[in-house]
Amino acid sequence: MKSLPTILISILISTSAFSQINKLMPVPVSVSVQTGKFSINSDFSVSVSGNPDKRLTPAIHRFLKRLSKKTTLTFDPDSVIKSNVSTTFILSVDRPGVVRLGEDESYSLTISPSSISISAPTDLGALHGLETLYQLIERDGSGFFFRSVQIKDQPRFPWRGLMLDVCRHFFKVETVKRQIDAMALVKLNVLHLHLSEDQGFSIESKTFPKLHELGSNGNYFTQDQVRDIISYAADRGIRVMPEFDIPGHTTSWMTGYPELASVPGVIKPEKRFGIFGSTMNPAKPETYTFLDQFFAEMCALFPDEYMHIGGDENNGEQWDANPEIQIFKATNNLATNHDLQAYFNLKVLDILTKNGKKMMGWDEIYQPTLPKNIVIHSWRGRDYMDQAAKAGFQSVLSNGFYIDLFHSAAENYQNDPIPPGTKLTDDEKNRILGGEATQWAELVDEETLDMRIWPRTAAIAERLWSPGSVADADEMYRRLPEICLRLEEIGLNLITNRDVMMRRLAGSNDISDLRVFLNAVEPQEGYKRHSIKPGYTTFSPFSRAVDIALPDAPDVILVNLALNDMIKTGNRNPTKKITVITDNWINSGNNIKNLSKNNPVLNEIIPVAVQVSELGKIFKSLLEKYKSGKTLTQKEYQKIEAEVKLRSKPIAELEPASGKVILILAKNMRRK
Amino acid sequence: MKSLPTILISILISTSAFSQINKLMPVPVSVSVQTGKFSINSDFSVSVSGNPDKRLTPAIHRFLKRLSKKTTLTFDPDSVIKSNVSTTFILSVDRPGVVRLGEDESYSLTISPSSISISAPTDLGALHGLETLYQLIERDGSGFFFRSVQIKDQPRFPWRGLMLDVCRHFFKVETVKRQIDAMALVKLNVLHLHLSEDQGFSIESKTFPKLHELGSNGNYFTQDQVRDIISYAADRGIRVMPEFDIPGHTTSWMTGYPELASVPGVIKPEKRFGIFGSTMNPAKPETYTFLDQFFAEMCALFPDEYMHIGGDENNGEQWDANPEIQIFKATNNLATNHDLQAYFNLKVLDILTKNGKKMMGWDEIYQPTLPKNIVIHSWRGRDYMDQAAKAGFQSVLSNGFYIDLFHSAAENYQNDPIPPGTKLTDDEKNRILGGEATQWAELVDEETLDMRIWPRTAAIAERLWSPGSVADADEMYRRLPEICLRLEEIGLNLITNRDVMMRRLAGSNDISDLRVFLNAVEPQEGYKRHSIKPGYTTFSPFSRAVDIALPDAPDVILVNLALNDMIKTGNRNPTKKITVITDNWINSGNNIKNLSKNNPVLNEIIPVAVQVSELGKIFKSLLEKYKSGKTLTQKEYQKIEAEVKLRSKPIAELEPASGKVILILAKNMRRK
Repeated sequence: MKSLPTILISILISTSAFSQINKLMPVPVSVSVQTGKFSINSDFSVSVSGNPDKRLTPAIHRFLKRLSKKTTLTFDPDSVIKSNVSTTFILSVDRPGVVRLGEDESYSLTISPSSISISAPTDLGALHGLETLYQLIERDGSGFFFRSVQIKDQPRFPWRGLMLDVCRHFFKVETVKRQIDAMALVKLNVLHLHLSEDQGFSIESKTFPKLHELGSNGNYFTQDQVRDIISYAADRGIRVMPEFDIPGHTTSWMTGYPELASVPGVIKPEKRFGIFGSTMNPAKPETYTFLDQFFAEMCALFPDEYMHIGGDENNGEQWDANPEIQIFKATNNLATNHDLQAYFNLKVLDILTKNGKKMMGWDEIYQPTLPKNIVIHSWRGRDYMDQAAKAGFQSVLSNGFYIDLFHSAAENYQNDPIPPGTKLTDDEKNRILGGEATQWAELVDEETLDMRIWPRTAAIAERLWSPGSVADADEMYRRLPEICLRLEEIGLNLITNRDVMMRRLAGSNDISDLRVFLNAVEPQEGYKRHSIKPGYTTFSPFSRAVDIALPDAPDVILVNLALNDMIKTGNRNPTKKITVITDNWINSGNNIKNLSKNNPVLNEIIPVAVQVSELGKIFKSLLEKYKSGKTLTQKEYQKIEAEVKLRSKPIAELEPASGKVILILAKNMRRK
Repeated sequence: MKSLPTILISILISTSAFSQINKLMPVPVSVSVQTGKFSINSDFSVSVSGNPDKRLTPAIHRFLKRLSKKTTLTFDPDSVIKSNVSTTFILSVDRPGVVRLGEDESYSLTISPSSISISAPTDLGALHGLETLYQLIERDGSGFFFRSVQIKDQPRFPWRGLMLDVCRHFFKVETVKRQIDAMALVKLNVLHLHLSEDQGFSIESKTFPKLHELGSNGNYFTQDQVRDIISYAADRGIRVMPEFDIPGHTTSWMTGYPELASVPGVIKPEKRFGIFGSTMNPAKPETYTFLDQFFAEMCALFPDEYMHIGGDENNGEQWDANPEIQIFKATNNLATNHDLQAYFNLKVLDILTKNGKKMMGWDEIYQPTLPKNIVIHSWRGRDYMDQAAKAGFQSVLSNGFYIDLFHSAAENYQNDPIPPGTKLTDDEKNRILGGEATQWAELVDEETLDMRIWPRTAAIAERLWSPGSVADADEMYRRLPEICLRLEEIGLNLITNRDVMMRRLAGSNDISDLRVFLNAVEPQEGYKRHSIKPGYTTFSPFSRAVDIALPDAPDVILVNLALNDMIKTGNRNPTKKITVITDNWINSGNNIKNLSKNNPVLNEIIPVAVQVSELGKIFKSLLEKYKSGKTLTQKEYQKIEAEVKLRSKPIAELEPASGKVILILAKNMRRK
């Protein structure tokens, strides 16, 4: 499935002649541009042949609705969709697709001046084809059209996921559905719901109702809502895999059921974040009786063949503190806590197997004695994944796809699960099923979720769908803004909620100065924001400047692309875009100072804005030198490097990002 | 309830010293500003005394969340809300409020430098007090605070509603909940859901499942969802009143139950809009058997004491066409179709009474023999309402509050249910219960709903809550933008979805030129957009320029306010705002022409933009004359009037709105 040769792609991407074809995301396996175009007008008609699942018709309705909104033409599905095949657009599907790992998702799309056809072995492929078709809408003075083209496409990896932590912060059903809508746009196919944590138990259990009643602060999905989410996702070709993280990260379980705990006491769901050590007692048979009944309930609720049991970050402290557990270890010849967790995992595996499920878990569950149909979810690093692959285990990569850590889209994008030059054999490669973007929810809430997940997850989606040779970050960044517009059109708020938050912060409709600043800075990366004192809690507001800043400062990306073009083409005159943005940066310090006069929530960003200003001045002066053909001695270069470093200090959890483009230019100006 | 004297209000509104106090909406009955301020910091604590309903605690949580987002301070309810009363903020409530007509909603709010107190007879008043308090947040260089003030407040009318048609277009539960959130912000207390129409039957019936199964195109609220909406609204002090429109407007009922029809045949839900004549057969006993079972089900589902039976726009054609109905009329001495409908209504009244409900209906249900506890819903004009009041009937006004007709906020605002100088006696006045904004859904969908309902409904809310003397439209317009920001902060998309739609229309992130144009024009008013050929349907896209234009062109409002100020103060120099906007108007024609080159969806607005340009030139030249002290002869004035009229022609369902300000200035310049 992953070995078909790529045919045409990358050559096309960098030409500008075929505007929409070059903006496809993810890039298809093969694109062959023809001459001519198919006009979109009110004669547009659709028919379906073959034997698709019933999910295809509502998908066509959604397609028509979007097409209608885009073109302002009216398409009434009752008259546009016809039962015979003498239509301008035909979808041919061999058989109903099953929403499960490894199902055929391939499709081919042919557009000629007189007709459009999508053909696919299953309707899941047809859904992908419909999305590709939507992305190809173009317009000129006379109307909307699709350019003639032949596309053949299929995913590189069968497991392309988004993990959503709904426990550290809870998200409403509609919010989850928005993510599903977005996933469908970029051809992702697994929604992994992290449903239990120290901070909350976010799903109703009918067998053990105190789990959600006492463990959730009132925020949980009812089972009806879960069925609704699963069916909504399945209609869009997306699996929903639940995770119940055990034996650690289980504070919220023990609020209602303290008998599960390794250490007795009154236990309340956590409001702070970190590793708390709450761990189930693996030495009591009652623990397994509980899990047996619990998983029987959840395995019946979720139709997916995989059940994720977490298994991460058990520090063993509570096990060490309990003498009975120590005796249990000795009695059962379990030398280490890892051995004890392995014992626990095997018991859980039996339960899952009995319920017809395969097991998945984070790196830590790995042990050679497990059956080979489990899946290791790699979060600690590629080494663990390669090791598992060599030992015959399947795996999914999330290390490098931790979107909660505020790394750039480029970093996420270049994180190939099977990088060029890998030493793995073909068999080993085949065990690497794909990857998942992971949105842990310490620093995100309803208001910011969309802008935290997107558009970076679109870049990850391309990494997992498109051939590995599609890897140019600049090209990805050029296509990303259009993805943002498409996501907003279907209801996501990644652009608009930033505006809402800026208006609240500014206390005004006029956010132009604040926008300049916030488009020049980025939140601190990695776990740095987690170690701030006194520290975030589930009640933190998430309405400060850092919560509006993006991991890819938009104006820095724009300047970066324009600068790379300048350097590539040998043009030494800064484009208007670069000049305008640089001047905006220079003015930002004074503008933010003025804005802050009667606004206490802006005080913290004044020193950051001053840094942005100073970096702007450095950049401007360097651009002038570049224009006049000057070069930099090693000493001059180092001086600039030091100045940039000095003015890129994190303040208010923010970092000016413009230093990056200064250094790109400076490096290019270094004397050879 | 409606007769308390107003004490202080309007004098305060026009001063600028107390920024937030002057921005309250709706304006309270009495406001007395004191010296000093209460600082908002992390010591903020809340307690509740007395005997409120349990809805108060989650309302305090919501208040704290908003306060936290606004100030960026963290407020953990578990520690901020205390059980003793030694807190900085105390809410005292005498008894649980009941969400029903006439419940006490009054409150008083006192802020001193050391404490805040809200006291109210019921928690419903306390909810209103919390919202008023939130609107009073101010900030300066040192932090956030509430200014010391004493407010006593209560509604002028007990019935302050929003009617939402969920049939011509359906709206999701979350969309309905957003409207409830917004209603709570402006102290509205009735959500009237129009649940059945020719185009759709939008609620599940367990007794007659073919109603929603065949009559809804799959879009309907389940009964669980309805209970969820009712409970969500009740938590915010808002009644939910259902409407089942009978005997006309009933196409969707007859799709599943053709035996209800007056004229036989195959009947499908309508997709077009208008009056279709589908009318229940009042001559068959089976009709009443059906309605008896149906209303038994719905009266049990909806706890509100009122059931709205519609009753409007029965043109009688189907009754005239059915010989059996003619015989029935003769047999029962029913001379006219109105008499026959009166007969029908009395039968329905019996059913409702049996189920413990009072009846409400549109004007047409009025007949003197009905009991006096029914409510007439006046949509055809105030005369009908006054006539009902004189005959001893209660009524609610919607004529003049038809927000679907694109009239300005000022027109809605100045539509007083009991205008100054009314001839009604006090008893008759007391029968006028209030009003309802009505959002009929022919020309609105999920994407545009928020911007169609808001902010105009906030102006209507003020009309229904505040003393009648609060009636200055300019002052209302000055306060409206802040309401928009507050609505967006709690999740409405009235500002942001305009941006999304403009970006889709422009096909680009850069919407500055399109925004200038769309802020200068308004949709055609009244029913004009309904008579466009070939006509709108439920599948129309609603993504054209006219769908983004607002009934109050924002830049025209800004210029209007600035111009009125200039005239009032005798300043003859146009403000910078006026100059900038006027120049933008002048440039709009060319800018839109450029934008339209490769964009077919913009072609239709080119001639409108040309008109905007020409009006801009006229305005600019007039402003220059005004600046130099010139006046206009009657002939010159008439010439300007004719030029404005010529360039304000509706095109693409849009009208340039800037002619209004030209005429204001020209009138002022007329030689006396």
